[in-house]
Amino acid sequence: MALQINGERLWATLMEMAQIGGTDKGGCNRQALTDKDKAGRELFISWCKDIGCTLRVDQMGNLFLRKAGTDDSLPPVITGSHLDTQPTGGKFDGVYGVLAGLEVLRTLHENQIKTQHPLEVVVWTNEEGARFSPAMIGSGVWCGEFSLDYGLSRTDKAGVSIGDELARHGYQGETPCAPFEIKAAIELHIEQGPILEAEQKPIGVVKGVQGMRWYDLVITGQPVHAGPTPMEQRHDPMKAVAKIITALYALADETGPLARATFGDINASPGSRNTVPETVTLTVDLRHPNQQTLDKMDEAFRRIASDFSRECGVTHEIIDEWNSPAVEFDTTCIDAVRTSAEQAGLAYEEMFSGAGHDSVYVSKVAPTSMIFIPCEKGISHNEAENATPEDITAGCQVLLGTMVTLANA
Amino acid sequence: MALQINGERLWATLMEMAQIGGTDKGGCNRQALTDKDKAGRELFISWCKDIGCTLRVDQMGNLFLRKAGTDDSLPPVITGSHLDTQPTGGKFDGVYGVLAGLEVLRTLHENQIKTQHPLEVVVWTNEEGARFSPAMIGSGVWCGEFSLDYGLSRTDKAGVSIGDELARHGYQGETPCAPFEIKAAIELHIEQGPILEAEQKPIGVVKGVQGMRWYDLVITGQPVHAGPTPMEQRHDPMKAVAKIITALYALADETGPLARATFGDINASPGSRNTVPETVTLTVDLRHPNQQTLDKMDEAFRRIASDFSRECGVTHEIIDEWNSPAVEFDTTCIDAVRTSAEQAGLAYEEMFSGAGHDSVYVSKVAPTSMIFIPCEKGISHNEAENATPEDITAGCQVLLGTMVTLANA
Repeated sequence: MALQINGERLWATLMEMAQIGGTDKGGCNRQALTDKDKAGRELFISWCKDIGCTLRVDQMGNLFLRKAGTDDSLPPVITGSHLDTQPTGGKFDGVYGVLAGLEVLRTLHENQIKTQHPLEVVVWTNEEGARFSPAMIGSGVWCGEFSLDYGLSRTDKAGVSIGDELARHGYQGETPCAPFEIKAAIELHIEQGPILEAEQKPIGVVKGVQGMRWYDLVITGQPVHAGPTPMEQRHDPMKAVAKIITALYALADETGPLARATFGDINASPGSRNTVPETVTLTVDLRHPNQQTLDKMDEAFRRIASDFSRECGVTHEIIDEWNSPAVEFDTTCIDAVRTSAEQAGLAYEEMFSGAGHDSVYVSKVAPTSMIFIPCEKGISHNEAENATPEDITAGCQVLLGTMVTLANA
Repeated sequence: MALQINGERLWATLMEMAQIGGTDKGGCNRQALTDKDKAGRELFISWCKDIGCTLRVDQMGNLFLRKAGTDDSLPPVITGSHLDTQPTGGKFDGVYGVLAGLEVLRTLHENQIKTQHPLEVVVWTNEEGARFSPAMIGSGVWCGEFSLDYGLSRTDKAGVSIGDELARHGYQGETPCAPFEIKAAIELHIEQGPILEAEQKPIGVVKGVQGMRWYDLVITGQPVHAGPTPMEQRHDPMKAVAKIITALYALADETGPLARATFGDINASPGSRNTVPETVTLTVDLRHPNQQTLDKMDEAFRRIASDFSRECGVTHEIIDEWNSPAVEFDTTCIDAVRTSAEQAGLAYEEMFSGAGHDSVYVSKVAPTSMIFIPCEKGISHNEAENATPEDITAGCQVLLGTMVTLANA
């Protein structure tokens, strides 16, 4: 009989952690480096120390809890995620990945099993970006995306910096915030999307993260009175924007099932019901897990915007708001997750993450992949965020198998 | 040689009136029943009395300045418009129709000509609706669209009522605010649109007023995250609204050159760039001068909104905001305007008004039509509102011919 994690114990630790910053609506408000976040970290550290783990704290307050390997000089297999939440966050986003890592170590500990490579559970500082912007700053500094000075100097709305809060809480560690040699990095997370629930599969084998491009499309025409001005004399940005939206939906359809095109916001100026708008501004969010395909979507978007603007006698400007390249995870790590799911007899879906995670930064310097489990109605960043005990158990079981395999290979 | 109006004198009266409430940018702020409006009315009355006109003031403060006919028991031919302006209004909107009426009377007076029917120049109270809502309340009460109590009780933002201001200025007259027998009513106005300027014609023979329907189209889908949610699982109101807008443009094109479809404002909720909107609200303004055709456009709009909402898996609601039926002016009056333009050797365009005017209400109880002249770039309700002295003269000349013909027929 294969090693089994203790699902009830894992659920109990999740519920206990959720009380720190717990909200009336059953969610969690435990923002980065607040007193609540400190309390959560200390509870987690105490649990790890109970099973003999050692702690390293780096200069950004990232925590590394380590269970020694039989050859402790070998690079570790790491897992983990974050303990901070959104202001009206849930009980699972991030926290699940950390506490499932703990449950893996507990299971090995109580079965007196040591893996060849050491295992580490990491808590990344300020993943959410709710208190300090940008998000994922702990893993971002660690992988070299941002400088340490930049990371420490980020301030919240009250002007308090990350460095201030790390010093206040005693979490500005000695360990350099920089990559070290890692055998493999596996992050377990709720999906934050509807796919696994719709497919009725408990496990997502995550092969990468969608590339995303955010734009503001600003279309400018001529504001004229709705009554007297004949249609053919108009320069109407609304006419162009409608055609562009429809063409971009068609582009997403043609590009295939992994493409996404979203128009979350739109505004017309002056916004008077009997005046043709002078300007319409549309937010455009294009995504694809394959970078070359996303680049082609970007080119097509620019052509579509240009063609229909010209056709409608209006001008346009595309403002690039954000460009997050597609990430492809490590094949060995992906295979290990798939094999672990198969060995556990759990149905899985191979998929791409639609949201950013610490693993995006980790994957820049270490072989990485992720495991997803379903969350109710795909809702996240919300106090109503939920997952079933069965799926919570299943995800952790796959994590256990994956880590043991990678740590003994 | 036919009777000629004095264009220079007319221009001078326009410029003198424009000084009352004149703005730094060359516009006019003479809102209804303010002290400025009172000063404007008194200047106008004094000019009329100089040429022997008599004054009636009705219960809504509408002014009727009368030049007797050879048979003064016959119903009058009336002209006129309004002296009140927008807060940042121009020098011509409304004022031109009143002062051109004065110029017609002056021309007849100095040539010692009496028409068979009496002539009257009317100043309607609060046409703009800028200070007191609704617009056109003076002519609206007069024609029976609103009760007198309703009209007098309209208040401005400070809570001052029309009745209060009429009493304060001494303009709450004895004459019942009710229709009397009228031979014909002709209103001269700047076009407030671009057609005559584009056609390079000084005269618009106005055959009626567009019917207008205002709607709010509210489309409701499902707010989901832009990243994970596959396109085919979405219920995206933005997809539906883009198709509906494009279809309504096509509807306007198919309906012909007099149809108008305008989408002046649009809003998405929650309005987050990486969330499919739950709701998109679009303002829809449909217009046509033929009521049956407008009714068909209304039916087609409802069908289009329903079809594309169903196709996109979203729900919709159409909120009727305003319904202003099309107005067809009186054939005899229209013919008189056309003939007068021809006799003056002036190029004209037969057209429909795209904006509301006092004549819409007057036409409910009297044979009515309007004359338009070009205004620069179609701009109105703006301090930059402008018209050329040549066009100002041409419009008044056509008004003179029209009134004399109708008053002697």
